[in-house]
Amino acid sequence: MRNKRQNDTNFREDILRASKNNFTRVILALDLQGSPSRKLLRTGKNLVEITAPYVCAVKFGRPTVLNLGTESTRSLVKASHGNDLPCIIDDKLGDIDETNSAICRAYFSMGFDGIIVNPIAGWKGGLEPVFKIAQKGGKGVIVLVYMSNPGASDDFGQLVLRSPRGRPRPQYEIFAERAEEWGADGAVVGATRPEIVRKVRAKLSDGIRIYSPGVGTQGGKVVQASRAGS
Amino acid sequence: MRNKRQNDTNFREDILRASKNNFTRVILALDLQGSPSRKLLRTGKNLVEITAPYVCAVKFGRPTVLNLGTESTRSLVKASHGNDLPCIIDDKLGDIDETNSAICRAYFSMGFDGIIVNPIAGWKGGLEPVFKIAQKGGKGVIVLVYMSNPGASDDFGQLVLRSPRGRPRPQYEIFAERAEEWGADGAVVGATRPEIVRKVRAKLSDGIRIYSPGVGTQGGKVVQASRAGS
Repeated sequence: MRNKRQNDTNFREDILRASKNNFTRVILALDLQGSPSRKLLRTGKNLVEITAPYVCAVKFGRPTVLNLGTESTRSLVKASHGNDLPCIIDDKLGDIDETNSAICRAYFSMGFDGIIVNPIAGWKGGLEPVFKIAQKGGKGVIVLVYMSNPGASDDFGQLVLRSPRGRPRPQYEIFAERAEEWGADGAVVGATRPEIVRKVRAKLSDGIRIYSPGVGTQGGKVVQASRAGS
Repeated sequence: MRNKRQNDTNFREDILRASKNNFTRVILALDLQGSPSRKLLRTGKNLVEITAPYVCAVKFGRPTVLNLGTESTRSLVKASHGNDLPCIIDDKLGDIDETNSAICRAYFSMGFDGIIVNPIAGWKGGLEPVFKIAQKGGKGVIVLVYMSNPGASDDFGQLVLRSPRGRPRPQYEIFAERAEEWGADGAVVGATRPEIVRKVRAKLSDGIRIYSPGVGTQGGKVVQASRAGS
């Protein structure tokens, strides 16, 4: 497990500063589709410029990075930083250690400040190096605790017996505890599930913020998620 | 759920043909690190040429695609096809539907024949479109049932209560059933766990092959995994 840190990461500080400056807890989710990369980059930069006063960070989806390519992604991250907005890559990374290291190093070298990981890969031989690499570089790691789509309840909502005579507990509760143990900088709970946001909020220490995607298209409501503790 | 198909996908046929032609069930795992892309591509093509008579497919890791870039990846897939070897992208894709669709379309347009998915994303609003897109294009979908790293046992090996009065069952068994229900073309169980390979083999119908990464560096043994049913 990662040692509890005495100080916040740069990531935590940066996002808190942007949030205080702009009086907001809303994050811009950038999902840029299509081509060519140059045109997408222009659209992305415009979106960042227009929304910068109203958001506290920019979250890039994997297809966005894939469509932009490495160079344009780096340029868009830089443009976001120019507006004092930290950038999160929503990778849901959950592979074996070597793969995880290579992927997160690549993202951090593009300038990303934080990465979303899928806790199912576990710690040993799994996500351990991501936390170590992030810690060294002042980067943030955000743990996926409950996805926003309807089918996610099958697994994130299932009851788990961690010990033969223990009481059954929901999967998301176990993932939330792991976020705490691993020293994560945040937890993802879909905005479509304000009740779960509330329960996870009660489990986590104050420093670990809850990130709730799924507002808008997927039906999540800002006020509901926010009141619940996102 | 995806309808059971009367015919095998091209993917299933292609991999079976390569396996019969070369008298092997071994898959080349391509993990190319470093730069520049042109040099990596040359290394990759050499590896494919040298190993082609002894393998039945090529599995690309995500960092390989990231390091190669889209164009060189396409070129390496083409070189593999030139040696009658189908190509699998080991993405462990498990996101919401729109993201999944964009990512798997991008891979299939690079020429990949099959993709590995993480079942934790669920079906509805999750992996459903990946199976649909794959089915239309004759591509294969392989479901992650048990990862190869030590820490994977925390989740893939945990006991789950799917109904309040049901008996507790291991997570990997539930994921294996899902591979069957969803009409997957394969299931991944780490070669480091031959006992689990045996149990999963017993659960799956014959058409769904078991893919076992983790031979070599991670300590898995070909003979053990193979005897168990990989």
